[in-house]
Amino acid sequence: MNKQQIINTIERKKTFLCVGLDSDLSKIPSHLLEHEDPIFEFNKAIIDATLPYTLAYKPNLAFYEANGWKGLISLEKTVSYIRSKGEKIFLIADAKRGDIGNTSTQYALSFFGQKDENQNFDAVTVAPYMGEDSVKPFLEFEDKWVILLALTSNKGANDFQFMQSSEGKLFEKVLQISKTWADDNKMMYVVGATQANMLTDIRKIVPDNFLLIPGVGAQGGSLEEVVKYGMNSDCGLIVNASRSILYASKEQNFAQKAALEAEKIQKEMAKYL
Amino acid sequence: MNKQQIINTIERKKTFLCVGLDSDLSKIPSHLLEHEDPIFEFNKAIIDATLPYTLAYKPNLAFYEANGWKGLISLEKTVSYIRSKGEKIFLIADAKRGDIGNTSTQYALSFFGQKDENQNFDAVTVAPYMGEDSVKPFLEFEDKWVILLALTSNKGANDFQFMQSSEGKLFEKVLQISKTWADDNKMMYVVGATQANMLTDIRKIVPDNFLLIPGVGAQGGSLEEVVKYGMNSDCGLIVNASRSILYASKEQNFAQKAALEAEKIQKEMAKYL
Repeated sequence: MNKQQIINTIERKKTFLCVGLDSDLSKIPSHLLEHEDPIFEFNKAIIDATLPYTLAYKPNLAFYEANGWKGLISLEKTVSYIRSKGEKIFLIADAKRGDIGNTSTQYALSFFGQKDENQNFDAVTVAPYMGEDSVKPFLEFEDKWVILLALTSNKGANDFQFMQSSEGKLFEKVLQISKTWADDNKMMYVVGATQANMLTDIRKIVPDNFLLIPGVGAQGGSLEEVVKYGMNSDCGLIVNASRSILYASKEQNFAQKAALEAEKIQKEMAKYL
Repeated sequence: MNKQQIINTIERKKTFLCVGLDSDLSKIPSHLLEHEDPIFEFNKAIIDATLPYTLAYKPNLAFYEANGWKGLISLEKTVSYIRSKGEKIFLIADAKRGDIGNTSTQYALSFFGQKDENQNFDAVTVAPYMGEDSVKPFLEFEDKWVILLALTSNKGANDFQFMQSSEGKLFEKVLQISKTWADDNKMMYVVGATQANMLTDIRKIVPDNFLLIPGVGAQGGSLEEVVKYGMNSDCGLIVNASRSILYASKEQNFAQKAALEAEKIQKEMAKYL
């Protein structure tokens, strides 16, 4: 999915919502546990309910890997199900990968290089610590995206990301240097909604790149602030919500409740577009 | 496996070699491809051949994930096979994970919290960029280890890890801050052999921690230099070799050739112990 296709979808559906599929066996409604693959049943219901309000889905790999190879089957079925919907949906593997070149190549193959095109993601989140050759292998696939961690939404972001050098803070250096690896047609950045006040400075460095914004909802970030400081003329934002949508209810009606949560966010987004 | 058990194994077997199981379908001997699970057959033969010379094995998750859920089955079988050997073997998941707290908890569960104890690793490599709460969940399991990326062996290490602040370089700050999260009974560090000249400075910050040293062999690092600058009174080193052992031969005799490579390294290590 290329940048123009993302922009077109945002304009058509009036949404830049990403639903994070952090699907956790211990949190999904208990009536689903009788199914052979409860995580897939849950995801299907969430996808069906939220798709009208959604630009992107973001399975969080950790939640699938915690269930071993069976978890990966749940993930593969989920990816196929999303692809079966017959519309352009931006599909992000939230994996935070990053390793030496030949290893990153293997990770890139697992997300972008599967023979079955319907098993491939559109984007993967990548950690910057190991530098250019850890990121480059993900950039070698057409219409696929790296979403590089810049400024994250968690408390630990303060430990290293704000480290100050003569050339600015670490996250600013990550933006400045990685800009030279790929342009805004291949590279997005993770910027936590809990750091919305930093978005003005970030937009000075990467005015044109899409930003993936986690932290709205359960983590306490404000959509209004994110839009105020981060939106550009293409929208330029993909705002993720996970727990506030997925676990809006643990009852039989969880999917309707999830739809209501997603719709609420989408309606607010539509105001800003 | 606790620190004393690692030290005991090093003394008993006169080795601090880690064999990296970067097992790649496109590189293993072609006669193995007729097996139902060629990667597992390859790993079994490599493990049988190299175990006398080896302290640790380090499956590289990327190479398994590239084969989807079938790759994870190969990995689970490999872990069980290593555990079936009936001796203390230090088993590292080279995964370079790191995410916000509740996600890192899921990763920690997948490596350390499986119900079948024989499926659990002893250690996992973790990326530091997201800070303390991204690392803490891995530290909550008894006798399990975090191996935090400090200074990596790849060219891209120069992009950010040497960033200079008033408190030192980024990798030094990673060492200094993470020391306060856990001591040398829970935390090791990745320091690339290609950066052996930096080990003197690193040992000033973390004199007692074990260091996992990749980059000897195919990546060009020197074991002699690593020992000279990095060894402490506990040995304090786990030196990894992957490709130089795994792919010593692509013929029927690949396992014998791998054993010879591992033995050559072990014999050199024995001189230094």
